[in-house]
Amino acid sequence: MTEAVLNIEGAVCAPPLTHNEQIVMGHGAGGRMSHQLIQKAFLSAFENPALGAGDDAARLESGFHESLAISTDCHVVFPLFFPGGDIGRLAVCGTVNDVAMLGATPLYLTAGFILEEGLPMETLQRVVASMKAAAGEAGVQIVAGDTKVVQRGKADGLYITTAGVGVIVPNLTIGGAQAKPGDMILLSGSIGDHGIAVLDARGELGFQSTVESDVAPLNHLIDAMLNASKRLHVMRDPTRGGLATTLNEIATQSNVGILLKEETIPVRREVAAACEMLGFDPLYIANEGKLVAIVAREDAEAVLRAMRATRYGEEAVVIGEVTAEPPGRVLVRTTLGSTRIVDMLAGEMLPRIC
Amino acid sequence: MTEAVLNIEGAVCAPPLTHNEQIVMGHGAGGRMSHQLIQKAFLSAFENPALGAGDDAARLESGFHESLAISTDCHVVFPLFFPGGDIGRLAVCGTVNDVAMLGATPLYLTAGFILEEGLPMETLQRVVASMKAAAGEAGVQIVAGDTKVVQRGKADGLYITTAGVGVIVPNLTIGGAQAKPGDMILLSGSIGDHGIAVLDARGELGFQSTVESDVAPLNHLIDAMLNASKRLHVMRDPTRGGLATTLNEIATQSNVGILLKEETIPVRREVAAACEMLGFDPLYIANEGKLVAIVAREDAEAVLRAMRATRYGEEAVVIGEVTAEPPGRVLVRTTLGSTRIVDMLAGEMLPRIC
Repeated sequence: MTEAVLNIEGAVCAPPLTHNEQIVMGHGAGGRMSHQLIQKAFLSAFENPALGAGDDAARLESGFHESLAISTDCHVVFPLFFPGGDIGRLAVCGTVNDVAMLGATPLYLTAGFILEEGLPMETLQRVVASMKAAAGEAGVQIVAGDTKVVQRGKADGLYITTAGVGVIVPNLTIGGAQAKPGDMILLSGSIGDHGIAVLDARGELGFQSTVESDVAPLNHLIDAMLNASKRLHVMRDPTRGGLATTLNEIATQSNVGILLKEETIPVRREVAAACEMLGFDPLYIANEGKLVAIVAREDAEAVLRAMRATRYGEEAVVIGEVTAEPPGRVLVRTTLGSTRIVDMLAGEMLPRIC
Repeated sequence: MTEAVLNIEGAVCAPPLTHNEQIVMGHGAGGRMSHQLIQKAFLSAFENPALGAGDDAARLESGFHESLAISTDCHVVFPLFFPGGDIGRLAVCGTVNDVAMLGATPLYLTAGFILEEGLPMETLQRVVASMKAAAGEAGVQIVAGDTKVVQRGKADGLYITTAGVGVIVPNLTIGGAQAKPGDMILLSGSIGDHGIAVLDARGELGFQSTVESDVAPLNHLIDAMLNASKRLHVMRDPTRGGLATTLNEIATQSNVGILLKEETIPVRREVAAACEMLGFDPLYIANEGKLVAIVAREDAEAVLRAMRATRYGEEAVVIGEVTAEPPGRVLVRTTLGSTRIVDMLAGEMLPRIC
């Protein structure tokens, strides 16, 4: 009765890796290089019966009343504390969100800590307190943990890996392969806040900023959306690689086109200014408290209303639609009326953003 | 319906941490300092309804047909490859074993990789191949993963954090608090092999050794034991901190005494020689493919027979018994007839052993 889908975040096909290749920072950036690494190093080895669904969590049937959703995330953000959040809140929300994106109710988390010798105990306690608060907000329990210590210089303060287990609402199939031409694309709020807040904490902005990370648990927002529609096809949080990479993943998995209207995508003024100065495109900047949803056209209005009634969906908008052509491609119609292709993030843009 | 027990490996009571305290290597060694860290930094924050069972995995009731067991382990062993195993095999077996120690059938694993920039791809592929083989041997599926990359010098090649989910056989209550006076204590084979094999790989032995790590998945051994007896009270794998620390944990959790016969505890000749030279006590050396079981006296013989019929239990022996007095203490009767107290490992002995 056990059947599992292999799930390593955002896997797509990729050319073979060359010999003598080494890990470089771009392999961790969530874009095309990450996908290639996953494809070559992991997917081929850990091949499971129902292969490569490529969603943020694995859907498991195992003779339970309910199906399980399971996910894991490593967190290596630098610095540990940034405007609006810290590595602890990130570690809880990241995994809660990945489980919830399958339409599952997250219940339990595990937390593994790799600590660097010399880490102040007070820092660890602040991080743990933040995890506790985030878990309380999400309504999940942290039920198992482990701690290892490595020598000075062999880590960067601390790293946290969380795993999450949830139950999937029966008869619900939400996943990256479910987008259909005609569906509407909804976004829960402004993009780029998390990435810019972390850059600010690193002192890399070069000006005063009030941007705060959006890091938040989205499971209650998703509950509201599920109550509003039975035709939610895809939900995903555009983290590493940003909205552009997430939509490219979905376009590939569903073999559909995606057409966005540029002027509908909300970007805070300060985030846009920072991106312009630094030469970044906000479409590629990481978010940690946003989701993109692909919904049957006739339910889009109801879902949008439900989103706007929740704390983390107040600024939800429609940003585009799913098309039959060109399959696997994301296009943006600019304010000038032209259309450009938006590709997946290629290599490294912002390392250690989560 | 959801009820969870907090589970952070081997938690016991501990004095308060002092202000300005920093993380030191001993906090990761699995002994008394690790327990203090867990108690102060984690248990107080992540307090759950049924507090601090302190087993290797969490037992969860959540409205499923079966109860779930969930566990997690970080792996930072140095070097990555050692006689008899590698970090990949360790990461799979460690979590499989923690789930199985609750009398659960491990089904699914997640794997989170923190990779250091510059890691040869071939190294990663060898580790992943080893994980695949170990997962196949254990009969579990790796269903979710994540990969992060940190800059050169910010990790030591790679770290792997695995989490595991299993189903608990109904009506079975196995845990560290279940030992009863009169129970017999069984050990599945020789102790100290893993720790000495890793020291050998580091070139720290100073002589030629043929000792191999015992790293192995023990779930099939446990299946055989469960078939032989319904009165298995405790099972645990004596990893970091060794047999002495594991038995101290159990004595504390069950509030019983434990009396061992020194000459019955199997130690390979080379392991004993290495320990003598280096000033180590094999009772404190880590194992990664051994388990200690506490069984009702009348079933001990049947369980021992069942263990010896399996690959990883061929050398199983009875090493002692549970006593009413002195509660919380582990005593060893030496070959000379004297009795000594065996305390928990205090701080650091062998860092980065798993």
